[in-house]
Amino acid sequence: MGESAALAPWRSPLSRALHRNRSLVYARYAQLATVTQDGKPANRTIVFRGFVDQAVAGHCNDLKFITDRRSQKTSQIEPQPAGELCWYFPKTREQFRLSGPLMIVGTATADTSDAAWQKLRRTTWHNLSDNARSSFAWPSPKADRDDESAFTPEPLDAQQPLDDFCLLLLTPIAVDHLELKGNPQNRCLYTRENGVWKQRSVNP
Amino acid sequence: MGESAALAPWRSPLSRALHRNRSLVYARYAQLATVTQDGKPANRTIVFRGFVDQAVAGHCNDLKFITDRRSQKTSQIEPQPAGELCWYFPKTREQFRLSGPLMIVGTATADTSDAAWQKLRRTTWHNLSDNARSSFAWPSPKADRDDESAFTPEPLDAQQPLDDFCLLLLTPIAVDHLELKGNPQNRCLYTRENGVWKQRSVNP
Repeated sequence: MGESAALAPWRSPLSRALHRNRSLVYARYAQLATVTQDGKPANRTIVFRGFVDQAVAGHCNDLKFITDRRSQKTSQIEPQPAGELCWYFPKTREQFRLSGPLMIVGTATADTSDAAWQKLRRTTWHNLSDNARSSFAWPSPKADRDDESAFTPEPLDAQQPLDDFCLLLLTPIAVDHLELKGNPQNRCLYTRENGVWKQRSVNP
Repeated sequence: MGESAALAPWRSPLSRALHRNRSLVYARYAQLATVTQDGKPANRTIVFRGFVDQAVAGHCNDLKFITDRRSQKTSQIEPQPAGELCWYFPKTREQFRLSGPLMIVGTATADTSDAAWQKLRRTTWHNLSDNARSSFAWPSPKADRDDESAFTPEPLDAQQPLDDFCLLLLTPIAVDHLELKGNPQNRCLYTRENGVWKQRSVNP
């Protein structure tokens, strides 16, 4: 509670950007960078699935995504949990860079057995489209291409997530907001220190 | 010459994507991931400025960007030159991930004094808009915000790049092309081994 239950100051400009770009379905897509086990950058597009908000205590500002346990990012995150999300909003011409630790929530383990996380995992699975759910029953990603028939599994139970279905959470500890409109542009840095958010206007 | 002068096989689908998305100015924006000196990911939007093509021998498949020497990516690239560009095309719903070494071309140094690079640097500077050029004369990025007046420098000489103006080149050695249209999606991996490109259809 206390600090951690409060909305971070960057939530307001990010919500405004989401609202003003809502006519573009791809305004909810962003690029997540991680580091591979040999110290190189990896970068892919992921779909924003909302904030954790009140679902899990102390995590209200976490951004929620989903991932397949078989994907490479899952094995990259285990040894190096740091991530940076780059999120560009085309309509309002602004960019948010959000960095902080990533966390994977799969089937209950010592780390993620918390009932609140498992409940959030189940409701997130339930709210997916049939197509999105079925991709978790597809053959292994990045293996040699299988026959089409391998990609048409039985309809899946919307109540019970498959084992490979994971939540992916980003807990921002630094946010860099750049507005390209205007000359010069506006840029604001938000950093979290000892649980308190500070913000600072800087040169673009 | 030989292999290195030939267009890589991923150039054709990438050119098609650029063409089919040409009505969106931001289809030329992509996200570049690098690794910081403490081993964490960094990620930002950059503007694609075309291929090097025949301008510099042996670099025809290099992607060209520009950067300010004072930006953080420049100092990140020196110790760890690996980069991964994630490029999402909204209209055709496809993603290219291009990874490989990055190179900075600034004022002539031992590494980059090659006349062909310096010529490309000058023509790239010349082809920028006045606004884009003037940003290289702005006060230091990420320093405490300066007064508006600091951002209105004299018009700059279009013939002579400022010292902080650098080319940023990405030489792809692996490309991952994912087409989201269709169910299941199509995914193709291209890898360069011993100067020869190989391609392979894989599961999405």
